[in-house]
This record gives sequence, structure tokens and C-alpha cells, in this order.
Amino acid sequence: MRLAFPFAAIVGQDQMKLALSIAAVDPAIGGVLVFGDRGTGKSTAVRALAAVLPEIEAASCPYRCDPARPDEACETCRGKPKSRRGKARVPVPVVDLPLGATEDRIAGSLDLERALSAGEKRFEPGLLARANRGFLYIDEINLLEDHLVDLLLDVAASGENVVEREGLSVRHPARFVLVGSGNPEEGELRPQLLDRFGLSVEVKTPTDLATRIEVVKRRDAFERDPAGFTARFEAENDAVRGAILAARERLANVAVPDETLEKAAQLSIRLGTDGLRGELTLMRAARALAALQGGAEVGWPHLAELAPLALSHRLRRDPLDEAGSATRVTRAVGELAAA
Amino acid sequence: MRLAFPFAAIVGQDQMKLALSIAAVDPAIGGVLVFGDRGTGKSTAVRALAAVLPEIEAASCPYRCDPARPDEACETCRGKPKSRRGKARVPVPVVDLPLGATEDRIAGSLDLERALSAGEKRFEPGLLARANRGFLYIDEINLLEDHLVDLLLDVAASGENVVEREGLSVRHPARFVLVGSGNPEEGELRPQLLDRFGLSVEVKTPTDLATRIEVVKRRDAFERDPAGFTARFEAENDAVRGAILAARERLANVAVPDETLEKAAQLSIRLGTDGLRGELTLMRAARALAALQGGAEVGWPHLAELAPLALSHRLRRDPLDEAGSATRVTRAVGELAAA
Amino acid sequence: MRLAFPFAAIVGQDQMKLALSIAAVDPAIGGVLVFGDRGTGKSTAVRALAAVLPEIEAASCPYRCDPARPDEACETCRGKPKSRRGKARVPVPVVDLPLGATEDRIAGSLDLERALSAGEKRFEPGLLARANRGFLYIDEINLLEDHLVDLLLDVAASGENVVEREGLSVRHPARFVLVGSGNPEEGELRPQLLDRFGLSVEVKTPTDLATRIEVVKRRDAFERDPAGFTARFEAENDAVRGAILAARERLANVAVPDETLEKAAQLSIRLGTDGLRGELTLMRAARALAALQGGAEVGWPHLAELAPLALSHRLRRDPLDEAGSATRVTRAVGELAAA
Amino acid sequence: MRLAFPFAAIVGQDQMKLALSIAAVDPAIGGVLVFGDRGTGKSTAVRALAAVLPEIEAASCPYRCDPARPDEACETCRGKPKSRRGKARVPVPVVDLPLGATEDRIAGSLDLERALSAGEKRFEPGLLARANRGFLYIDEINLLEDHLVDLLLDVAASGENVVEREGLSVRHPARFVLVGSGNPEEGELRPQLLDRFGLSVEVKTPTDLATRIEVVKRRDAFERDPAGFTARFEAENDAVRGAILAARERLANVAVPDETLEKAAQLSIRLGTDGLRGELTLMRAARALAALQGGAEVGWPHLAELAPLALSHRLRRDPLDEAGSATRVTRAVGELAAA
Amino acid sequence: MRLAFPFAAIVGQDQMKLALSIAAVDPAIGGVLVFGDRGTGKSTAVRALAAVLPEIEAASCPYRCDPARPDEACETCRGKPKSRRGKARVPVPVVDLPLGATEDRIAGSLDLERALSAGEKRFEPGLLARANRGFLYIDEINLLEDHLVDLLLDVAASGENVVEREGLSVRHPARFVLVGSGNPEEGELRPQLLDRFGLSVEVKTPTDLATRIEVVKRRDAFERDPAGFTARFEAENDAVRGAILAARERLANVAVPDETLEKAAQLSIRLGTDGLRGELTLMRAARALAALQGGAEVGWPHLAELAPLALSHRLRRDPLDEAGSATRVTRAVGELAAA
Amino acid sequence: MRLAFPFAAIVGQDQMKLALSIAAVDPAIGGVLVFGDRGTGKSTAVRALAAVLPEIEAASCPYRCDPARPDEACETCRGKPKSRRGKARVPVPVVDLPLGATEDRIAGSLDLERALSAGEKRFEPGLLARANRGFLYIDEINLLEDHLVDLLLDVAASGENVVEREGLSVRHPARFVLVGSGNPEEGELRPQLLDRFGLSVEVKTPTDLATRIEVVKRRDAFERDPAGFTARFEAENDAVRGAILAARERLANVAVPDETLEKAAQLSIRLGTDGLRGELTLMRAARALAALQGGAEVGWPHLAELAPLALSHRLRRDPLDEAGSATRVTRAVGELAAA
Repeated sequence: MRLAFPFAAIVGQDQMKLALSIAAVDPAIGGVLVFGDRGTGKSTAVRALAAVLPEIEAASCPYRCDPARPDEACETCRGKPKSRRGKARVPVPVVDLPLGATEDRIAGSLDLERALSAGEKRFEPGLLARANRGFLYIDEINLLEDHLVDLLLDVAASGENVVEREGLSVRHPARFVLVGSGNPEEGELRPQLLDRFGLSVEVKTPTDLATRIEVVKRRDAFERDPAGFTARFEAENDAVRGAILAARERLANVAVPDETLEKAAQLSIRLGTDGLRGELTLMRAARALAALQGGAEVGWPHLAELAPLALSHRLRRDPLDEAGSATRVTRAVGELAAA
Repeated sequence: MRLAFPFAAIVGQDQMKLALSIAAVDPAIGGVLVFGDRGTGKSTAVRALAAVLPEIEAASCPYRCDPARPDEACETCRGKPKSRRGKARVPVPVVDLPLGATEDRIAGSLDLERALSAGEKRFEPGLLARANRGFLYIDEINLLEDHLVDLLLDVAASGENVVEREGLSVRHPARFVLVGSGNPEEGELRPQLLDRFGLSVEVKTPTDLATRIEVVKRRDAFERDPAGFTARFEAENDAVRGAILAARERLANVAVPDETLEKAAQLSIRLGTDGLRGELTLMRAARALAALQGGAEVGWPHLAELAPLALSHRLRRDPLDEAGSATRVTRAVGELAAA
Repeated sequence: MRLAFPFAAIVGQDQMKLALSIAAVDPAIGGVLVFGDRGTGKSTAVRALAAVLPEIEAASCPYRCDPARPDEACETCRGKPKSRRGKARVPVPVVDLPLGATEDRIAGSLDLERALSAGEKRFEPGLLARANRGFLYIDEINLLEDHLVDLLLDVAASGENVVEREGLSVRHPARFVLVGSGNPEEGELRPQLLDRFGLSVEVKTPTDLATRIEVVKRRDAFERDPAGFTARFEAENDAVRGAILAARERLANVAVPDETLEKAAQLSIRLGTDGLRGELTLMRAARALAALQGGAEVGWPHLAELAPLALSHRLRRDPLDEAGSATRVTRAVGELAAA
Repeated sequence: MRLAFPFAAIVGQDQMKLALSIAAVDPAIGGVLVFGDRGTGKSTAVRALAAVLPEIEAASCPYRCDPARPDEACETCRGKPKSRRGKARVPVPVVDLPLGATEDRIAGSLDLERALSAGEKRFEPGLLARANRGFLYIDEINLLEDHLVDLLLDVAASGENVVEREGLSVRHPARFVLVGSGNPEEGELRPQLLDRFGLSVEVKTPTDLATRIEVVKRRDAFERDPAGFTARFEAENDAVRGAILAARERLANVAVPDETLEKAAQLSIRLGTDGLRGELTLMRAARALAALQGGAEVGWPHLAELAPLALSHRLRRDPLDEAGSATRVTRAVGELAAA
Repeated sequence: MRLAFPFAAIVGQDQMKLALSIAAVDPAIGGVLVFGDRGTGKSTAVRALAAVLPEIEAASCPYRCDPARPDEACETCRGKPKSRRGKARVPVPVVDLPLGATEDRIAGSLDLERALSAGEKRFEPGLLARANRGFLYIDEINLLEDHLVDLLLDVAASGENVVEREGLSVRHPARFVLVGSGNPEEGELRPQLLDRFGLSVEVKTPTDLATRIEVVKRRDAFERDPAGFTARFEAENDAVRGAILAARERLANVAVPDETLEKAAQLSIRLGTDGLRGELTLMRAARALAALQGGAEVGWPHLAELAPLALSHRLRRDPLDEAGSATRVTRAVGELAAA
Repeated sequence: MRLAFPFAAIVGQDQMKLALSIAAVDPAIGGVLVFGDRGTGKSTAVRALAAVLPEIEAASCPYRCDPARPDEACETCRGKPKSRRGKARVPVPVVDLPLGATEDRIAGSLDLERALSAGEKRFEPGLLARANRGFLYIDEINLLEDHLVDLLLDVAASGENVVEREGLSVRHPARFVLVGSGNPEEGELRPQLLDRFGLSVEVKTPTDLATRIEVVKRRDAFERDPAGFTARFEAENDAVRGAILAARERLANVAVPDETLEKAAQLSIRLGTDGLRGELTLMRAARALAALQGGAEVGWPHLAELAPLALSHRLRRDPLDEAGSATRVTRAVGELAAA
């Protein structure tokens, strides 16, 4: 098993790290879209965050069910007495969706060989099964066919993969954080699909010399001596892990005052976003941020910080306004603060 | 089994709720098309309506036949003495048609594995079987291939799924309300197919602050405590259920005077709709509305309220009239009232 | 078995009813194309005509052979002594060709499951087999692939389906009236295929109020009480049936004088139709009309009435003449009458 | 078995009848292309010519080998002693190539069912096998894929179908006259393929009244009483048959003087045809014509009559000469005669 | 077995005959491309050359291995003692690549039937196996898919067909001269592929009367009496055979002086051909020509004669120079000679 | 086994030889892209470099595992005691990716025949398995589908091929140097994919006479006497081998001072390359170059020499700067040196 690059050793890229941390605190946020330059370590960051999280307890089924949550157990587990479900600590899974993956490979399919040779219908779990309780990373999601993006978003939203095909009728847990990356210069997702992602961030190549040199040095150091390099960042990684675990505990008790909801709605109206998913997500993400920061209530600063992440990808094109969408959100935040 | 959002807790969206209620009273209306913004809770509303309806009595066959209607029983049921057909109360089914579904998956197909291993031809029921006595929801129906929309409309209209392929000759009940949603900005259905839907409604993001805040609060409250939230709306949900059940009883006795038919025809002529499905549907929907409102006769107000739902999607494009089709219908209603 | 709408209860649509009646008298006419508005009851009319015809005597083979015509019996029937071929009265079949039907499904194919499991080659009859001695209805025929339309026209013309594929060599009777409907606004058939249809008619939405109200009332009345409604039109339906049966008897004895042929040729030359199928069809249809009307000889009035049905779809586009093709035929009829 | 329309009863269409007769005398001419209006009886003419020819003696193999030519016998026949090869008189076959036919269906293929069930590789003969010693008719050949036209022309030229696929290595006689019909308005064959057809003719709808009436009367008479109608033309049909059989005998002894060859070459040069297939075909066709007419030598009149049939389809488009290609050939013939 | 047209009886077409003869002397030249008019006997010439060559000694394996070259024997042969490899004289093979041939058919594939029925993996040799030690002819090579042309050129260059698929790992000798013909008016090969052919020639329809008549007479004479016609050219054919065999012997001893190489390079530079394959081929072809002519050294006249064949198809399009590429090569040869 | 052309006998093409040598020293560089003229010996150079490297010790598994590195052994090897893993010296493999290769063929797939006949799931290794520890060469990589290029780059970067499909779960070592060649005139790789290649070089046809003659002479000499020609260059080839092996040893100890990293970053900023892969690769390649030259530290001259190879393919198109990308890099190097 290769070592992951330490999350704490990632230089810069604060918005991406923020979005991933928020999704780690409240996966109901609904997935993260990462736009931007190639070669900026998007995939590395996802893997790094997964590695920073504590290992999970897992049953020996193909879905790594949580033994502490028998109500969410898969059918395989339910079919066994608790004592025989197995139990082991495994790392949080990160699954890469390969370009050109088919629906069968993603959702699982009939085990054809078994069907033909033994006359038995058995489900062959797919990538969604392997992503349960972890992360599903899709590079260049804009190149994936719409019906597959749709399937991934459905499963990510419901936490369940339902396969009703070829005489199979399978339902298994598939709770994961969906992270998609794409280069907007190479084709876009349809607005329908964009809207179903929770947060979006844009990453750019750093432009100051010191940062660049530091990135290159760390990357080279890690590749030449992974274990040594990882050890150097152990304490910082532990701090990240601690903050996320604490925020998860605190989340249910963070209050969202009505004024805050009103601000979120005003922001959305000002920006003319379709539907209400934008402000719903903004509210939830702000709550997770407050939890991460140890706060007891969601306030304007939380909204202001997260508005670009929650609303930018929900804007309609405005042919009269040449500013990028993140800029338009930031401007609206400023106007509202001033109002 | 996840709880559905309470129908009575849906804020606004009155036209969509009206259309769904009418289809629940008289499914012969022929399906509902929902156009409009993403993120406005279209799928939620369908699920909510199904959940508000009382559970149905069902035989243990794959079609959940109604034990009270032996004349509509499927072949499996007919093959058994009544006492052995099973009987249980199950929720009204809601089936989602996944993007990219094939005809096999929708209509059912030969159980290939069984055919090859046991040399036996057996029908593998599809999504139509699962939708019997419930709702079939198709998100982004404009992206579905024409021959599949056609198949769905045929079955919805006849209440029967007939599969004559691969040596199979199966006919099973498939009575359901078809609900399709689509965004007219992303491609349109052919007029041939539009015309076969009974009603259409347009949904929009609410624009007043209070409504938006209320929607977000209810949605968040529901997700954090589904059971508690549902309990809060139990009485209102019961009222909705009561109204629909009463209307079903009353429907056969609601009269349609000739003047009403004349008005419906005048409206259609004024609008230049092709064929007569428009006024036929308008008359039926008005009758269901009268039944819902406890009336004994269909009158002009019923027509006036439902004309936009029954006629808008049957209008031809008028290059000289830039008004939307719902506006054109409303205008014609006004003119006729004034005439 | 659902009841069909009574043929005699169809309001208006005289040309379509005429064309279908003529095809019922002399199926060699070669199929009927119905152009026009959606929602005008095209499919209903075909089903209604089939239901008005008397039930047929049928052997128990998949082709429902006519026991009175042993020379036209299928191979299955020939393989049995007459006494064992079975015999029952069954309704005249109406088969709907589903959008997206494949050649296998239409023409029949190897029963693959049987071939693989029992090592036996057996023919799986298709939709053509089921249409034998009845009607084959194709909605939106302009959307069907050319090679399938071609196949359907070949079989309709020869009355025989010949399958020579996959080691099968099957030939079975497939005599049926082909009825295709299409909307010329959504793509056209190639002239090659148009020419092979016998008659064409155009149907339009009625524009006078009384007719529309009557259609809606009858439709609603039928759906609410099919049996009662049908009973109301029994006598009229019987009259239609009687006229068709009488015309079939009389057909062989109706004379076609040379002057009539000359008129038919003059009409075709004036209209510049390619080939001679137009005047051949016109002559035959006029003969069937004379038979329906109890006449002994075909005359100019028969030609004049049927020319638009037999010739309109065989005209070339005339860029200098903006009139519709039916109008051009009617005009030519008038000129010839005046000449 | 349905009766074919009598060849002698075909009214007009002299060029087509000439081309078919020449191909019947010397099949090495290389196939006939028929361009022109729909509904002009192209398929009828092919079937009529085949029916006019005397029945052939055939072995009981799938290729109907000629017992009188053991050197051309198929492998099945060679594997049996002569006395056991069977022998029967069968009509000259006419095979229709259906639109959408695949290479497998045309050339034959592995009998898959036999291979899978009995583990035995057996050849399933295709349409080429069925056409051996007869005619292969392709309606709308311009719609057929190039590689299939190529295959058909290869086999027609060599008289042999060689299948080397799927572990099969089969070679069987496939001598037939290829007749293709097409409407030049609906797409054209590539010049490469056109050039490989021997003769081409254009058929048109007759324009004089008497002819048209006669065609319609004969067609109707034939369909109402095939046997009686056929009897009326028996003597004339016998004469056609006699002429063709006599010409076949005489063919080897008809001389082609050098002046005639020179004229053929001059004609081709004047017309600028690519390659030499044009004049080679012209010479051969002229020889067959001389044989049909009982002549001993090929002369200028034979060339002049056949040049349009042998050369028209080999002309390059001339953008400066708007005349049709047949006209250009006729003009060149006139100029050469005058020179 | 049909007789081939005698090589010596081909009238004109000197460049094509030259290119084929050179490839017969030194197959490492790398294939011949023949451009030009249809109907000019390209396929006939290839078949004629193969027939003029002496029969080869062949083992009884599917590749007809040369018993005199045990180092080049296939695996089948190597698996047997020499005495049991069989040995027979067979004609030089000529294989036609059919339009629409698949990679499986060309390169060989798993014998699926054997695999399924006997559970044994066996290689089913393809067209490349059958072409070993002979000629592979591709008509209209410009219509073949790029990856197949690429495969054919790879194998032709290496003399070996390597199949590593479906669990097969087969390597067999496939030495052949690739001859492709094409009409540049119907699409072109990519420059990458053109460059990998050794020589190219252009053939045209002869324009003088005497030649044309002679071609037609010979073709007709051959077809009417193949054996007699062949006998007439036996002596001339023997002379061609003798010259080729002698040149093969002499080839290794023909010298290529540095001045000749310099001239070849100057010619290529002047013409701006990419890469060095052009001059390498020119040098080799000139050496083979010297050998055919009995010379001991390659000189300027050899280069001058072969430059159009070796370089024309390697020129880039020059938008400012409208001359054909062969003309441009000839002009450069003239300039260099004058320099 | 054919002999490879000696690496030391390659005339010119210094950049390509440099890039390949650097990849041989540090395969983590990430693959080499070769752009440019056809016929310049790209494939020859790769094969030549592989042949110059010493043979490798290999276990008898399909991946040729290194017996000296048990930690990198494949599953097959791990399943056996060390003594039974076999061991042999084999040449460094060079695998050619054929045009039209499928994912199955590249990555490996289920051995279908085995699965069906023996009911056993076994992995059929693909081309990636065969390339392990060697070179994978893709001619015309710009014609390969994106998802395959992506797969190849993923595996090349991770050194592992992971196949999770069809119920297989296989992971095997696949460390190789990826070399792709392409002609930029025939379509380009997407920037996303370009960026993932380590180095790029451009090759051109030499333009001076002496070089060209030498190339042709060497090529001809090699083909006429491979063994003799190879012997002539044995000492030079040994020197190349020695330098590469020494550099591999030295690599870990070559230092990269911060000033050098700063220069690399300044160069990338000046050129506006996206992401940091450019400077990371430049640094690594410079280190390998220093090692090849026996240096202990990476300095400006190493960067200056390698910048065009590491950065050219990472530049964005600059519509205002018509210079080629290599020229733009060289210019930036000059400016920076001058600064």
C-alpha cells in the first residue's frame, strides 16, 4: 500500500482544502466540484484528506458496513448473526472512476460467469460499493456521459445504490463524498447536473516563487522518501483530524438563526439562482464551518466565506456581466454587507 | 424505508399540487408534465403525494394486483385460487425511470439466465410492473428517446403492458400516473408526444423572502428529524387524503352540462389546438376538480382554472405572438369570459 | 378484451372511413396512408373497422388460417389432417407496430432459446404472423426505417412473409391491410415508398362547434360505459358490416369500361404521376366503391370521388404550384370534367 | 407457386427487354442496371424473363448444379457418385436481395446453431447460392452498402462464391445475371461500381394514352385470372424462348471484324470513357444481339443500337454538356456514322 | 483452377509492369501502390506476374513454409521432424483483400467454435497466412480503415504476423508483396501511410486506337479460349521469368557507388520529401533494376528511371505548383541532370 | 529474434537520444513524446535503446518480476516459494501498441474461453503486462482514444496496472517508459494529456547531404548484414550502456540547490505554464542529466539544456506570438540567463 501525501503538507489551495474538510464534516453537503488548471494536485488532495481521517471499523462484507450501525447494514450482513459479520479496521476508501467506465462497472452487475456456469444469479458489486464510507473521485467529470453523472449524483444524494436489472434486485449502502474535477475550457456540465453538486472551488497554479519552490521541494522529498516525509507532518495531520472529528460531534448543536437564513435568501435572490438548493447548501456548509471553528451559531461571516463555494456554479450566464461567477458572488456578498 | 416529505408541508407550488391531486382522483387524465426550474422539488412532490394516499391492498404477485378487483388480476393471480393469492397492505409505489433506461428494463424481458440454465422461458417484469397502481416519475423526460416516451404513454393510456417478444407473450396490468419533468431550455418533446400528456404545469423558484426561508427551514428540519417533522403535518396530510378519497367516490356523479362542453370547445378553437384531446382532457380535469371541491356540476370557473394546465402544451408556436403559452391560454379565457 | 369504439359512432372523418371501407372490400388496393393532425382518432378508426367486421373462422395455428381455403393454409396446417387443424371464431386482428420494432420482431426469427437449449431450429412468428387476415397499424410511419417500411410493403403486396435467415426457411400467409399514419411536418416517406401505398387521406380537426362537442361527448360516454354506448350503435354498425360484405360478393362482377380507364389515364397524365400504379389503384378503388354503392359499372363519378385518395401521394412537388396535392388533384378532376 | 406475368405481355419497355434478353444469351455481359421511374414494372420484367426460359435440370444440392456439366459441380455433388446426385427440373431461380441484407445473409455463413449444439462446422448457404443459374435482383441498389455491391459484382464476374471466414473454407458455383434497379435522384453508385455493370437502361412511364390503358388492362386481367391471361400469351412467350435458345447456340460462331472493333474504340475515345470495359462490353453485347437476330457477323448497326446501353453509365460528368448521358452516346454514334 | 492472363500478353502499362517486376526481384522494396483509371487491368497484372513466377516448394502447413529455409519455418513445421513436414509444388499465391475485411479475417483469430466445443485454443489463420510467399492485393486501398492499412504495412515490412490476443500468442511468417490500388479522386491515404509504400505508379487508359483494339482482342480471345491463348505467349512469359530469376541471383553483387547515393539525396532534398525512406527506396529499387538489366553497378540512369516511382507519393502538396507529383519529380530529375 | 539497429549507429537526432537516455536513467520522468516528420527512425531509436541496456533477470511469471526485488513481486510470484519462481536473463522488452488496440487488449481481461469451458475466472494479461520493466511504444498516439491514453499514463505514473472488472480484481506491476510519437499536423492530444508526459522532443529530417548519405548507407548495410554491422558498433554501444548504468547509481546523490529550483520556477512563470508538473519534471530531468554527465549538483546549464524538452509541450497557444513553442522556451532561457 503506497503512502498518501500528507494533507497538512499541501501548500496553499485553501479553498479546496476547506471544501473537502466541510464535506468530511457533513457529507450531506452533496459533493465537491473542483475546477481549474491541470497539475495542481486535485487528486492528491482527495487522497490526502482520506488518509488523514481515522481508519474505520468494517464488517467483512463487500461494502465494509459499520458494525456500530446495524440499521444501515447491507443484506449480506443482515443475513448473518452479528458475531459472524467480521470486523477489521481499514483505511477510508478512495475510488477513482476511470474514464470510459460503464454503468455496469459503476453500479455493479450480474456476475455473468457465475450465472452461466453455476446457474446462479449473483451480484457483482461495482465501484459504488467500493466507495461506500469514503470518497469517489472523478477526474474530468465533464467528459463523463450525462446519465452516469446523474446516476452518481442520485446515489451520492440517497446514500444507497439500487440495482434492479437482469433479474437482480439489490440495494446496498453507498455513502460517499463525490469529488469531481474538470477543466471548464474542455466542455461543461449541464446546469441540471451542476446544481446537484454541493460546493465548487476553483484552483489555480500559485504565482509566487516561494510557494512554487516549496511545492516542488515537498513533492520531490515525498517521492524520494515517503515515510520520512510523512513523519515530518504527523503532528499537523493529527490536528486536522482532531478538528474534523470534533466538528462532527458538534454539528447537531450549531444553531441557524432566522436572520442568517434571510441573508442567505437575499444573496440568492440578488444572484438570481434557480431553485433553492443554493441557499440550502449555503446554510448547511456554513453550519459545518461554524462547527469546524468551534462556534455555536451560524453567522454572516460564515455565509460570506462560503457563498462563493455554494453559489458560483448555480449562476446563470449573464451576457452583460463579464466577471467570472466567483467574482459576481463576492461582489454580491460585499453589496449585501454594505446594505 | 425512508419517510417521504409531507405533501401538506410543501410551500407554494399550487399548480403542481393541483395537477397531481387531479391525477390522483382520475388517473384517466393521462399523466402530468412539469416544466421549469431545477431544484424546485418536483420529484419530492410526487413522492409526497404517493405517501399521502392510503396504502393499497395487494396480492403477492409482482404487479401487486388489487384483491378487490379480480377482473383486473394478472395471469399469475388468475392461476391461483383466491385464497392463495396472498394479500398485504403496501404503500403506493413511486418508480423513478433512470436516465438511460432501455426498453427491456422498462417493459420487462426474457429472463435470460433462467432461459439458458433451465431452458425455461420466464418473464422478468420491468419498471412498468413495479409502477402498477402508483406513479412513474421521469426526470428530464425530454432526454428520453422518443420510442420509449411513446411506449410509456401507450401503457399509461391503456393501463396494460403487452410484451410480445423473444417468444414471450405477456400482458399485465400497468395502471399508473405518469409524471414527467423537463426543462424546456434543454430540448423539447415532439408535439405528438406533448399532446398525449393530460396536464402540464410550470414551476418556478419562489421570489419572496418569507417563502424561501420557510422552504429551507422545512427542508432542513425534515432532514434532521424526519419522524418529528412528519408528525407536525399529520393532520393536514389527513385532510388532503380525505379530499382525494371523497372526490374519487363523487366523480361518477358530477354532471357536465352542454354549455360547459361548448365553452371548452370555443376555448380550443380560439387557441387553435390540433385534435380534440385538449378539450376532452379539460372537461375531465374540470370534472375531477369539481369533485375535489364537492360540487355536483362542472362550470365555467372549473374550466377557467384548469385551461392553462390542459391546453398550454397543445398550442402551436405562434411566431407573431411572443407571449408564453400559459399566458395565451389565460388571455383566451379572459376574452371568452368577456364575450 | 376491451370493447372497440363503434365504427358507426365516429363523427365526420368521411374520407378516412371511405378509404378503410374500400380496403376492407378489396385488400389488394394496397394499404392506406393517413396524414394529418394528432388526436383525430386515426388508430381508433382502424380498430373500429376491424371490430365491425364479422369474426373469422380460424385454425389453431399461429397464423389463424382460414379453414375454408385449404390452398392458402400454412405449413403447420398442411402437416395435419383437416380434422385436427382446430377451428374457432376469433375477432379480426389489429396489430400495432411499436416504434423501434426490429426486423426480427416484425418478420419473426429463430427461437434462440429453443435452439440453444434443445438444439432445435424453430421459427418464432413475428408481428406479420399476428396481423394475418387483419390490419397492421403503424403510427408515425415516417419515423420507421426505410428497409422496414419496404419489408412491410413487400409482404402486404404479396400476402406472404418469406423468412430465409439463420438457417430458417419459412413462408407463411400474411394477408393484411397496412394502415400507416404520419404527420408530414415531421419528415416524409421517400417517394419510392409513398408510391407503394394504395390510398392516402388527410384528416383534420373538425372546426364546427357542434361536431367537436359531439365527438367529446361520445368519447366520454364510451369511456364511462363502453357496453351501453356500443349497444346504442349496434344497428348502424350492422348496416356498415352488411354493406361491406355485400360489396365483397359483388366486386368480381363490376365492369370497368374503356372510357373509364381512359379518363383515369388522362387524369394521371395531366398530373404527371410517375409509373402506372396510380391509375391502376384508382381503377381498383373505384370498382370497390361501385360495389359498395351497389353499382354494376365503374363511372366517372367513382373516379372523381377517389382520385384525391389514389393520386395525391403520387404527385411530384411542383415548385411553381403552391396548392396542396389534394387540391391539385381536385383541380385536375374539375378540368377534365369540364374538358 | 404464383404465376409470373408473361414476358411477351409486357407493353413497351423495349430497351429493358433487349438488355435482359442479351444477358440471357451471354451472361458474361456482366449484369444489367435499370434506372428510372418507380412503378414501371422493373421487377416484373426480370421475373417474366426468368419464367420464359425453360426449366433447368438440377441436382439435389443447395446450388442446383447442372448434371450435364460435372466439371462445374459443387463439392456436395462431387462427394457423391453421379447416380446419387438427384436430378429434377426446376424453374430458373429469381432471388430478390432485401434492403438491409447483411454479408452473412448474402454470401452464406457458419451455421451457428449446428456449431454450438453439435460442435460441427457447417456452411449455411446464402442468397448467392439460391441465385445460382438464375437472376439476382436488387431493387434500389444505390441504397446498398458499397462493400456488398462489390461482393455481388465480384461473384457475378467470377461465377463463384468463395467464403473464407469463421474457419469455413467454401467455394461454390454462383453464376447468375445481376440486375440492379435504382432511381438516380436518390443517390448514385460510385463510378468504380457503375463501370463493373455490363449494360444499363433507362425506363420511363409511357406517355401515350393507348399504351397506358393497355398496361393497366393487362395488369388487372392478369391479377384477376392469372392462368387464363398467361394462356393468351403462350405462343408469343414460346417465340421469345426459341429466339434466346437459338442465339445461345449460335453465339460462338458470330464473327467480330476488326473494323467493328475499331468503331467501338473510336466511339469510346470520342466519349472519353475510362478504361476499356466499355468497348469490351459493347463488342460482346453486339455479338449477342447479332446472334439473337440470326446474323453471322457483328456490324455497325449492332454497335449503334447497343452503344447507349453499354456506354452511358461509363461517361464522366461533363459540366459543359447538359445533355443526359444516353443522349451524349446517341449523338456520338450519329457523328461517327456521319464521319 | 482458372488460368491467369499471360503477363507477356499485357499491352502497354510499362511502369506497372516495371514496378511489379522490381518487387518480385527484391520484395524488401516495400509494396507497390497503383493509382489510376478503373478498368485498366490492375488486378489482372498482379495475377499475371504471380503466374509467371515458378511454382514454389511448400510444406503442408497453413503457411506453405519453404523447405529449403528451415530457419524461417513456422511453429507447426518446427514441431515436426523434417521428413514429416510434407512438400509439394504450389503456385505463388495471390490473395485479394475483400472490401470490409475485419482485423480478425486479415490477421487470423481464435477458432471460437473449437474453443467453445472442445475447450481448446487454436489459431485460425487469416488472409496474411494465405498470402505468405506471394502477393496480397488490395483494391481501393483508400477505402480501407487506417488501422488495417497500418497492420498490413507492418506485417509486410517485418515479414511476420504476430497475433497476441484472446489468449493466443502466435507468430507466423508472412512475407508478401503488398499491392494496393486506388483512385485518388475517391479519397486519399494519409501521408504517414503513403510513405510506407515502396513504389507508386499511375496507370491510364491507352489513347491510341491500335492499342485499344489489341487489348480488347486479346482479352476476348483469352476468355473464349484460355488455354490456346496462353500457349501463344508461353515463350515470352518464359523470358520474363528468366530475367527475374537471374536478377534475384545477381542482386547481392550490384554495387551502389557514393556518387549515386549523393544524387539520390540531392534529388530528395530538391523535392523536399520528409524523412529518408524515399532515397533509401530509390537506391534499392535502382539496384534491383540494375540487376534486371544485368548491370554490375547502379548509376544515374537507373535513378532517373525510378525516381518518379519511388518519390512521387512522398511529395508534400505544393499549393504554388500545379503540376502533378510525377511531373514534379521528372522535372527535378531533368534539372539535376542539367546541373 | 531479429537484431536491433545499434543505438550508437544512429546518426544525429541528439535530442531524441538524450530524452530516451534520461528516461532510462530515471523512469519517474514520466514518458517521452516524439513529434515530427515520418521516416525519421523514431521506432528504431526506442528499440535500439532497449537493446543497448543489459538483459534483466526475470522470474518465470507473465510480468517478468525482478528476483532482486521481492517487495515488488506479482501475486503469482508471491504465491510460490522463492526457489520455485524461476529465473532467466531476458532482453528489455519493447512493446508496440497497435493502432486500434482495445482496453481489454491493453490492460488484460477475463480469459473468456477458460471461464466458459472450465468455469474458472482467470486473468489474461495484456500489453501492459508485457511492457513491464521495458518500453511501451505508441506510434501516432494522437490517433488513440483519450480514455486509453489516460489509462496508459495512469499506469505509467503509478507503475501498477489495476484491473477491477468482470469480477476480476487483479493488480500487477507495470513499470515502463512510455514513448509516444505523433505528427502534430494530424490532430493533437488534449492539453490535459500532453501535460502528463514528462519530456517532448521534435525530430526532423536531416538537411545536409553527408548526414543523409550516411544514414542511408548505414541502414542498407545493417539490413544486408545485421550481425556484421552490429559488431562494428559494439564498443560505442558498450560506452552508452556504461554511462546509463553509472548514472542510475549516482542519481540519488546528485544535489538540487535552491537557486536551481528558483531558476526553474522563474522559467515556468515567464512561460505561463499551468500547474507545477513542468518545473518538477525539469528539475528531475536535469538531475538525471547531471548524473549522466557525472556531476554532483544540478546547475543552470542542465536546466538550460533540458528546458525545451520539459516545457515546450506545456505552453498554452499564444495567438500573438507566432514562434514555435520550442523557440519560445529557448528565448525565455536566453532572457533569464541575461537577467
